[in-house]
Formats: sequence, C-alpha cells, structure tokens
Amino acid sequence: MAQDNLAAVLYKTKDLRLEQTPIPEIADDEVLLRMDCIGICGSDVHYWQSGSCGHFVLKEPMIMGHEASGVVAKVGGKVKNLKVGDRVAIEPGVPCRYCEFCKTGRYHLCPDIQFCATPPVHGNLVRYYKHAADFCYKLPEHVSMEEGALLEPLSVGVHACRRGGVTAGQCVLVLGAGPIGLVTLLAARAMGASKIIITDLLQARLDTAKKLGADHTLLVTKDSNEAELVRKVHELLGTHPDVSIDASGAQSTVRLALLATKSGGVAVLVGMGSPELTLPLAGAVAREVDIRGIFRYVNEYPIALAMVASGQVDVKPLVTHHFSLEESLEAYEVARRGLGIKVMIHAQPRDANNHARFPY
Amino acid sequence: MAQDNLAAVLYKTKDLRLEQTPIPEIADDEVLLRMDCIGICGSDVHYWQSGSCGHFVLKEPMIMGHEASGVVAKVGGKVKNLKVGDRVAIEPGVPCRYCEFCKTGRYHLCPDIQFCATPPVHGNLVRYYKHAADFCYKLPEHVSMEEGALLEPLSVGVHACRRGGVTAGQCVLVLGAGPIGLVTLLAARAMGASKIIITDLLQARLDTAKKLGADHTLLVTKDSNEAELVRKVHELLGTHPDVSIDASGAQSTVRLALLATKSGGVAVLVGMGSPELTLPLAGAVAREVDIRGIFRYVNEYPIALAMVASGQVDVKPLVTHHFSLEESLEAYEVARRGLGIKVMIHAQPRDANNHARFPY
Amino acid sequence: MAQDNLAAVLYKTKDLRLEQTPIPEIADDEVLLRMDCIGICGSDVHYWQSGSCGHFVLKEPMIMGHEASGVVAKVGGKVKNLKVGDRVAIEPGVPCRYCEFCKTGRYHLCPDIQFCATPPVHGNLVRYYKHAADFCYKLPEHVSMEEGALLEPLSVGVHACRRGGVTAGQCVLVLGAGPIGLVTLLAARAMGASKIIITDLLQARLDTAKKLGADHTLLVTKDSNEAELVRKVHELLGTHPDVSIDASGAQSTVRLALLATKSGGVAVLVGMGSPELTLPLAGAVAREVDIRGIFRYVNEYPIALAMVASGQVDVKPLVTHHFSLEESLEAYEVARRGLGIKVMIHAQPRDANNHARFPY
Amino acid sequence: MAQDNLAAVLYKTKDLRLEQTPIPEIADDEVLLRMDCIGICGSDVHYWQSGSCGHFVLKEPMIMGHEASGVVAKVGGKVKNLKVGDRVAIEPGVPCRYCEFCKTGRYHLCPDIQFCATPPVHGNLVRYYKHAADFCYKLPEHVSMEEGALLEPLSVGVHACRRGGVTAGQCVLVLGAGPIGLVTLLAARAMGASKIIITDLLQARLDTAKKLGADHTLLVTKDSNEAELVRKVHELLGTHPDVSIDASGAQSTVRLALLATKSGGVAVLVGMGSPELTLPLAGAVAREVDIRGIFRYVNEYPIALAMVASGQVDVKPLVTHHFSLEESLEAYEVARRGLGIKVMIHAQPRDANNHARFPY
Repeated sequence: MAQDNLAAVLYKTKDLRLEQTPIPEIADDEVLLRMDCIGICGSDVHYWQSGSCGHFVLKEPMIMGHEASGVVAKVGGKVKNLKVGDRVAIEPGVPCRYCEFCKTGRYHLCPDIQFCATPPVHGNLVRYYKHAADFCYKLPEHVSMEEGALLEPLSVGVHACRRGGVTAGQCVLVLGAGPIGLVTLLAARAMGASKIIITDLLQARLDTAKKLGADHTLLVTKDSNEAELVRKVHELLGTHPDVSIDASGAQSTVRLALLATKSGGVAVLVGMGSPELTLPLAGAVAREVDIRGIFRYVNEYPIALAMVASGQVDVKPLVTHHFSLEESLEAYEVARRGLGIKVMIHAQPRDANNHARFPY
Repeated sequence: MAQDNLAAVLYKTKDLRLEQTPIPEIADDEVLLRMDCIGICGSDVHYWQSGSCGHFVLKEPMIMGHEASGVVAKVGGKVKNLKVGDRVAIEPGVPCRYCEFCKTGRYHLCPDIQFCATPPVHGNLVRYYKHAADFCYKLPEHVSMEEGALLEPLSVGVHACRRGGVTAGQCVLVLGAGPIGLVTLLAARAMGASKIIITDLLQARLDTAKKLGADHTLLVTKDSNEAELVRKVHELLGTHPDVSIDASGAQSTVRLALLATKSGGVAVLVGMGSPELTLPLAGAVAREVDIRGIFRYVNEYPIALAMVASGQVDVKPLVTHHFSLEESLEAYEVARRGLGIKVMIHAQPRDANNHARFPY
Repeated sequence: MAQDNLAAVLYKTKDLRLEQTPIPEIADDEVLLRMDCIGICGSDVHYWQSGSCGHFVLKEPMIMGHEASGVVAKVGGKVKNLKVGDRVAIEPGVPCRYCEFCKTGRYHLCPDIQFCATPPVHGNLVRYYKHAADFCYKLPEHVSMEEGALLEPLSVGVHACRRGGVTAGQCVLVLGAGPIGLVTLLAARAMGASKIIITDLLQARLDTAKKLGADHTLLVTKDSNEAELVRKVHELLGTHPDVSIDASGAQSTVRLALLATKSGGVAVLVGMGSPELTLPLAGAVAREVDIRGIFRYVNEYPIALAMVASGQVDVKPLVTHHFSLEESLEAYEVARRGLGIKVMIHAQPRDANNHARFPY
Repeated sequence: MAQDNLAAVLYKTKDLRLEQTPIPEIADDEVLLRMDCIGICGSDVHYWQSGSCGHFVLKEPMIMGHEASGVVAKVGGKVKNLKVGDRVAIEPGVPCRYCEFCKTGRYHLCPDIQFCATPPVHGNLVRYYKHAADFCYKLPEHVSMEEGALLEPLSVGVHACRRGGVTAGQCVLVLGAGPIGLVTLLAARAMGASKIIITDLLQARLDTAKKLGADHTLLVTKDSNEAELVRKVHELLGTHPDVSIDASGAQSTVRLALLATKSGGVAVLVGMGSPELTLPLAGAVAREVDIRGIFRYVNEYPIALAMVASGQVDVKPLVTHHFSLEESLEAYEVARRGLGIKVMIHAQPRDANNHARFPY
C-alpha cells in the first residue's frame, strides 16, 4: 500500500496545512478507505477562520473533512457488509452504541459520538482514512463518488424535512438559499411538498433555487418589513406554509418562520448563528406552531442514497468548483469567499472511481 | 334553471334506469352543482350486479355515482368558499360534524356519514346534485373536470399511503394493479417511495403500471407458490418492502403482504373480498409487521388536489373510456366487463367546463 | 321557567356588574343550561383588570365565566345525547365545524371558534345559559358539579401533557405551581410520569404541590442563577427531565425549560406573559429539544372527565373559596388578590345538584 | 471466586438437568453476575416440554432462565455504569449494535440478537452468568431482587401498552389473565387507562386480576357466543375499548379483540398459539382497527424499573412460589402444572441481597 498519506490539517485559526500523516490501523469492525471526494462545508470554513464552531473548540491539530466518499482498501475481521474495492459514502459520525440515545434510535444525540473534523476527532480530507464499516454505504455503480460525498449535506436536508414532517401536498417555506437551503428544497420536493417558496438576500442564489425546482422565490433585504414579508409569503403561496425550515440561522429568518407558519404547523431550525435570539414566541405558542431544532442527521444516509440512486433528487448541480487534495488551501479560500455553491476536493483523479458515465 | 334532471337510478340488482328526478333544494351550507364528470368505481358495479356491497344493502331506488366533479349553479346563504360558476371536485362523504370521530379528525369513521351512492344516500350520476359546500374543492383553471372526478380514487391511494406511513426512500409493494392499485402506485411515488414493485394476475395491467412508473412488476398466477413469491419480491427489490399495500382484497395477496413486509414494517389493506380470512398471523406478530385497514379517505381530497395541480401526479392516463350521461348503461356494461381502467361519464359535453387546454 | 337571569357582566376595565339579562333561545343542536358552578380563571381577572387578554379586546359588555357546569333545562329538537335534568360539564369553545382545523381534529385552532367570555362571546357566569349540546358532557352521579367545572383547567393540564407526550416512566419538570401548574402536575401523574419536580417563587404554592403529589419542589427567586437552577433540577431528579412544562409564562421559566430539558425532549409552553422573549435557542436547537406551545385544549374534556370519574385525579382540593352568584364581585376580588388556588362561584345552592355525597 | 457454578441445563425435550458449568470469562463491555432471582416463564416450560418455541429449536444443551436479577461480581475494563456489588435487573436480549434495527431504535428486531435461553444462547438459571453491562439496570436500594427479575414480564406488558398507544382516559380490554395479562393490566393502569376489563377462562385468575385493579372481569367459556361476548364487553365498559390487548394467543381471543375494539382503535397481539388463524378481518379493515403484534420489548426496562421504583406498579403479588436453584426441577414442575402465577427460583438465599425491608 502507498505510503503517501497527505492530509489537510488545521493547526489553529487560519492555519491550515498540507502534510503527511500516518496511515491508520483498523479495528475489527472498521474499514480503511482510499478517499475520493471531500466537499467543503460552512462549518469547515468556520473552524478554519475562528478555531471553533458552537461550543466545539480546536485545541490540537486536526485533519479537516467530513462530506466524503472513498473506496474500501482494507476490511476488518468482522466486517461483512463491505469488501475491498467497494465505493462508499461515509456517514461521518460514529456513536458509542451503548447509551440511551443509541438504543432509542437517536444516535446523533449520543454525547460520545465521534464526528469527523469536530474537535478533537480527525476528519477525512486525507489520502487514507479509517471508519466504522457500518457507517459506510456502498454506492450503486450509477451513483458517482461526488454524489456520494453530497449525501452528507443532503442528509441534513432530509433530516430537516423529516423533523418537520414534510409530506404529500404540503406548502413549505425555506429560509435561506445557501447549500443547506438548497438540499432542503430538493428533499422537500422529493418527499411530496406541492409548493415550495424560498427566500434569500441574494438574487443569484434564488435563481439557482428556481432552477432546482422552487415554485416561488422571495428576495429579502436586511431592512425588509417583517409583517410585509409574512404577507408576501402568504400571497405567493396562496396559503400559509405547513412547514417552514430556517436554513439561515439569522434572528430575522427565525422570526419570519414563526410568524408565517400556519397555525398547528412546524418551524424547523437547522442551526443558529448566535446563542440567544429575541422571538415573537407568544404568537407561535397561541397558534401551536411547533419549533424543532435539528442536529446533523440520524438514519438518513440510506434515505438520501435511495433518493439519489432512484433519480428522485439530482444533487449534481450543487457542485460548482473542483480542486485536487494538493489544492485544498485554494479550495478553502474559494469556499470562504462564498463563490458558487459547493466546492469539491478530489483526493484521487476525478472520475477515477466512476465506472458509469455521468452527465455534469 | 333547466328542468331536465336526468339521473341513473339503481332500482334493484341488475336494474339500472335512466329517468328524470326532481332538482333538489339546497340548505344554507350547501351548493347546487351542475354535474360534469362522474367516474365508475368497482363498488358501483358491485351494487348494480348484486344489490349490496359489504354490509350496505340497496332497499330503495338510489341514484348512482360518487367519483365526480361539477360546476356550482347555486349557493346557500352561509356559503363563503364558493360562488356560482366555480368548478369543483366533490368529496362524496358528508359526516355529522358532532360525534367523537368528527371531532378527532377521523370523520370518515362517523357512523352517520352520508356518502354518495351508499344506500340509502343518492349519488351524483345526475344532471343536478346538491352537496355540502365545504366538501366541494375548487379546481384551479389548469385542472380538468376529469381530473377533478379522479381525485376520488386518488384520495383512496393517498389514504392508503398515509396510513402506511409511506415516505422518502422507502420500498413499497403494491398488490393488485387495478384502478386502486394504480392510484396507490401514483400516490406512493409522489410521497417519496424510491422503489415500487407491483403484482397482478394480468400482464396488461402490469404493463400499464410500468408505464405509470412502477420500478418492478411481478406476474402472479392463482397457483403461485407463496414462499417463492416472497422470495421474488425480495430479489427484485434487493431488500424487503417497508410498506406493502394490498389493493386486491384476496386472501392470497393479504398473505403475501404479511409474509413479504420487512420486520417492523406496515401492511395496509385497502379492502377485503370476503369477511373471513385465514392468515399466517404468528409470523407477522413476531416480526411486528403492523396491519392497517383503510376505509375510504379523510382529509385527503386537498392533498390529492395539490398533487394533481402541482403536476406531481398525472391521473389522466387512467381514463380509458368516455360516455355521455345518456349512455350510462353502456358505460356500466364496459366497466362490468373490466375493459380498460377507468370509465368516465360526462353529464355535460366533454371539455365544456375546461377553459385551459389539456393534452389527452 | 324562572324569569330571573342574573349575570356578571364586564362593561369595561374594572367595571364588572351584576344585572339581569334575557334568557337565551336555543337552536336545534343546543341545550339551555341552569348554571351551577363557575370557577374564576386568571384570564377572567385579566379581562376585568385590563379589558383585554393577548389580542382579544373587550369592546362591548360581556358576560364573564367559562369554567363551568350546569343542569340541562331544555333541549333542542335534534339533541340526542342529553335530556332535561342531566348534569353536565361545559366545554366552553364551540368551533365552526366546517374549516380545515375542525376537520383535522384540531378544532381549538378554528379561527371562528366561539369561546365563552372571550370577546365578543358571552360566558356562563349567569343563571341560564345556552350551549351546543355536543360540547356538554354528562357527569356520572358520583362526580360533583364542582368537579365538572374543574374539568376546564384540568383539560388545559391534560392538553399540555398530551402535547408534551408525557407517558409512563418519564421525569417531568413543571414550572410554576399556580392553578395551571397544579392541574398539569395532576395530569402528568395520571399519565404515568414517574418523577415530577415543580418550581415556584412562593413556598406556600410548593407546599400545595407537594400535597398534590409532586416528588420534588424547587423554590426559585427572581435573581436565581440560571445555570445553578438547571443544576439543581438535574440533581433533584437524578437525571434530566424528558418533558418540561412551563405554566408560568415568564421569560425566566421558559429559559429554564429550554436549558434543563433532556436532549431530544420536549419543552411545552402553556402561555406567554409578553409577546417577545429572549431565549437561549441555539442550545435547544443543537440538542433537538422541541418547543411546543399550547392553546386551550382539544378533545381533552372526555379524558379529563374519565380521569376524575375513575379516581385517577382528585381535583377537589384545588377549590379554596366559595361564593354565590350574587357575591361574584367579592369572588373576583379574592381571585385578583391571589388568595388560595381556585375560587368557585355557585349559581345554585352548593350541592343542590349533587346527589351522591362527596367528602370535601 | 467460588468454583461452584451450578446450572439448570435443558438437554432435550423433558430432559432438564442440574449440573456444574464453567464460570464464563467476561469481555471489556461485560459484567460477571452472581445470580439472585430467576423467574419461570411460559416459554421456558414450552422449551422443556417440547424442545422448541415458535421457529426456535433446541439443538444442543442450553442453560435455561431469562427473567432475572443478580449482583455484579466483576466488571470489564470499559464498563462505567456499574461496579462490583451493584444489584441489577438483567435485560436478557443483547443485539448486534450494527444493523438497521439497532440504529433505528428497534433493537428487539435485530436478527442477530443474543437472547437468554433462546437456542442456542445460554440463559441465567445458574450461579454465575456474564452479560453486556449496558443491558444491566442498577436497582435502587428499595427495589427487591424479586422485583428486579419481574421487570422482564412487566416490560412485555409495558411494550404491549406502548405499542397500543395506551394513554390517559382510555378504556382497555385485556384478553387473558395469566402472568402476561396481569402485567399488561398493571402497565395499562400505570399509563393512565381509566377503565380496564379483563377476560379469562378461569374465575381464579379473574379474581387475581380484580385484586390487582381490573375494573371489570368477564368469564368466558370455550363455547361462548362471540357476538354475545362483544356485547357484554361493550355493556360492562359502557363504551367500546380504545385498545384491546390479547395476552392469550388463542384464535377466539384474537377474534374478540378485532370485533370488540372501537373503530379507529388498536388491537395488540402479544403472541400467537398457532401459526395460522382465521379472522373476521374485513370488519377490522372497514373500521380501521389497527392490528399490532409485539415481540418481547425494546427500551422498556428503564420504564418498567421507573414504574416499580416510583410505586406506580406493584409486581410483588405476582410471585406465588419460591424455590432454590437446587430445587429448579420441582420449580419447573409447579410452573408446568399452572399452579399460582409466577414461580421464582433463588440462586442465593432469599433476601440475601435485599437490604431494605419489603413486605411480601
């Protein structure tokens, strides 16, 4: 096996370095993966720029990367679901398997979960990486390695929609048309939403959302009048949204979600920008609008894969930039500048592991 | 208003007559409808041929018809949701609004529900018909009157899928490719099912199912080996179905549903042919396969309409035969002989109320 | 029938008057009730003192009263569930029966609901009052008229617990030990909660809660340290609460609910003091603590009655003061001063309609 | 550590032997337990008498016992939740932790679950036994070792009630008043059922049920008229049961469950006597009575323990016979003859590990 194991290691705030690391040994229930595609997420950039994300703080050098796919290079003694050469998507969090959360089907809330590139756990922006075999999902031949890596953000969208109970015939309001807003839009459509309206501060993002299938778009500005925005959402939909999903994290969009959602509906919050928010809660309470936060995903990788494999969801248009592993710093810089939608890093030559042909 | 009020009246077994009936007076919360499209359902044929269906027995002459759309001709004093000229789909059951079932959102189980063409309640295979205004759903201009009538069977499919909890990424087994099996297929797809397999005794029906989007079809015969069929379903899907929906009512298909469904999954039974069945229940119990019957639909007309209006579901190919109201007996004869899929009767010239153009 | 129809009418802020009013005529689906017990609720006092509650504003004189029981004096032509002489508890809200909320089992969210003593709808602090027959629940002989009136606040507690999903084996945190906090405590216990901790600013209220079955009580002060309170809740319970129910409406208790609830748990908010709150939402989102407001109750009167009739819940100790209808102003003054727990007004001599003997 | 490790080993049908076995070595995540109480279950007797149960067949000698409690004698290197001397209840099934069922919170359906005394897995009717530490639940001092062993059957009752959705204010029909019927009764009461009716063929069992809190009992005979039984259930309850739970497994009781349950309710089936049943399914389908089987329990040990520890449920009266480990064959013989309710075997002198005093 090759000795090269180049990795993108974050040493401290704004100090991301490419360097060689040891190839890890695997346990009985693990596989060694030759990494292929690794996407860059907003949280990656956040760690890079600030050394922390929420209450997670970088204290020691950590390999980046958690939106990824790879090819099985070695299998542990007890692994039955995979064999050498299998192309897999990697669900980045491996829980303890013993606690109450693990036993009740909410393993994403396991306090001891090991999650790629969440300090102090190493990620997979590296040549070789090991992972629990049961959190690797074999890709059908017609699903590309890039699509495999994109199952990570798509799973967030699926989790948001499942937590919101999105189902047939519903109207959905998505707040924010960045990568997470867009995967939420795709997931909501695949789960049967009949009408989807999406908002953003940037017209370019709304144009992308429109291309990806949004029925309506609404451009907002920093000083848009709240009541007026609520009115516009209702007017464009012709009704009130059953489910609103905030993919922005700003106080203003969370407020809009609470105010615009139909009585008895659900407001899903994918993540928050600041720890404290001031909200018009009394109205939401009196109208029984449920507020549900989401943390990553749980049992949604298989769903996301089924959606992509069956053609219900096309995530390919989300990738706008490609870099090699050696170009990781340039890739991060592009992501930091907010150019395009999703920046993809290739640890192997693009399409080296794609045997079917894919139209990009 | 016109005095003509031709109706198709079932007098007794095999005695269906066309005759004039009085135009009904409306109450404050009702509308008078000038009927447009009325589909024929298997239960209609059953009443015609046997005078009964389940425990409902025809005792007096009854106007047939319950899959229908019409145009508002008159509105009651308290009606706010509709006006004269509105094109509407008609949900045929009007519950009492007072009982526990009505209050808990399961009005379809109301013991006093008045349901079109279920004895002794008259149906709407007639020129003019009155109905509770809130059970009439205004059709957008681009939805045709035929589609409006087809919301009735589609609602059955939606109800079956909702009862089964069909959602994103699931594998679904549909047993029976008649009209109900086909609308179930369409609904399951729109609700996010990733893989759907459908079975039938007739290859022609399976071919239709394939055109309508089934991923796999499985031809069965009266003497197919049960265990072998289970094996084939699992092999074709590459896994066990999360949800099985029996749209046939035969003992053999119900058995197949129980045996083939994944542990912890759901078997939905749309209707039964005979009152008593012999079933391999112990296995279903030990594998916690839930068994859920369905009775008509509840709160599903708006969902079915949203599905059709948004283009998620295309029900138009289901209609294979057209007749005028005056030709109702020929229409019933075609339905009885099982030709085609759905027979549609037109109480007004076809497309008279369709202002947008529709491709058929 | 007696001509006396004394009523307690709120004319405007702080202007509550006793005066004669006409005995109402009943419709076909209504009953006329000779009122018996009418409790005073915090919202009643709020209307009296401020002329409004939330966005409901008193504009014309309105009869007060909505926590009540009475005896059927006359029945409408279509009423089947009641007869003259029946002792009933009165669910005070009567919805439109036609809208989407009414059809989906969430009639309490019906925008056209007519709710006793919510402007401009008259309440039942009066000698004779009419009501929809199906929202009157016949009391078994061994349930007293006072218990009948107390089904109203108990239903709020039941709704809070049902919305929170309180079930067997859970730990529940109740914030606030006023009347609503206490009925929530009783309901949570009856629904299987294994451990209940309750907080308040007043030791006397906590003592009452302890007598009513709280496992733990926690006295808080206006300047209690938030993190310290969270720590104490966890320490007293020996774990984190599965469900927290805020029955106080203060920002500080809502914050405590969000912070103390177990990951993946539920924080139920019964009502808010001010329209806007500043909350530590990011943590609740990241831990997937769901936030669910409640508005009154829906389909919970039958449950509350079953709880009381079966002896699972004893609400009798909640009543601390008794007044006659003629003493209504004194009764309101006692309620305003926050003396005792529940003030009960008797429109008929106490126990006149209680044929079984009750221990008070 | 003592070398004595006496075990009750089933060699083949009707061949149960007491013999010495090796004391097992523990893994890092396991504990060694000095066994205390081990109850006898109907399935134990079934294995003993027939060599099989359902599709599980005894092929090699197997130690019996799965309803048990013990004291921690040794802890594995990674165990954090327990220490030597802890008194624990033992959940007898340990799943694989890797499969889809384990990840979605339904680990009881894990195809690779290792379950005590289900061939070929050894049980714990032995002096020393090892078990996964996270499936051992520490007992509070005031909970006895016998109660610890009884958490096993109680968990079955809790699972049945949770699957049935038993909650506040409901009417519940329990079919069969054997040990499982009785724990179901206790669980249903603790979860808020307002009225419970229980049936059996034996009056003595009904008398016990009455003492344990059943509101109504109904004696049935082998040739009771089905329709008449349904009528009596409805008459005694004054309504139709929301949930029926069959704890008998006979065709006649399953039929009664389907026929008697309220429209829209749930019939729970705890286990089946024969693989095939003939059922009046059409009616259950048309009335949307859901049928849900149950298999053991999942995540219910902590609930059962909370119920017992809080005093919500008193399982102590269930134990009618006591034997020492050396008397195991006599104990099995008593169980086989159906004397009493629950037969308890003590691997240590009774109360040796009970430090608090318990009233029996």
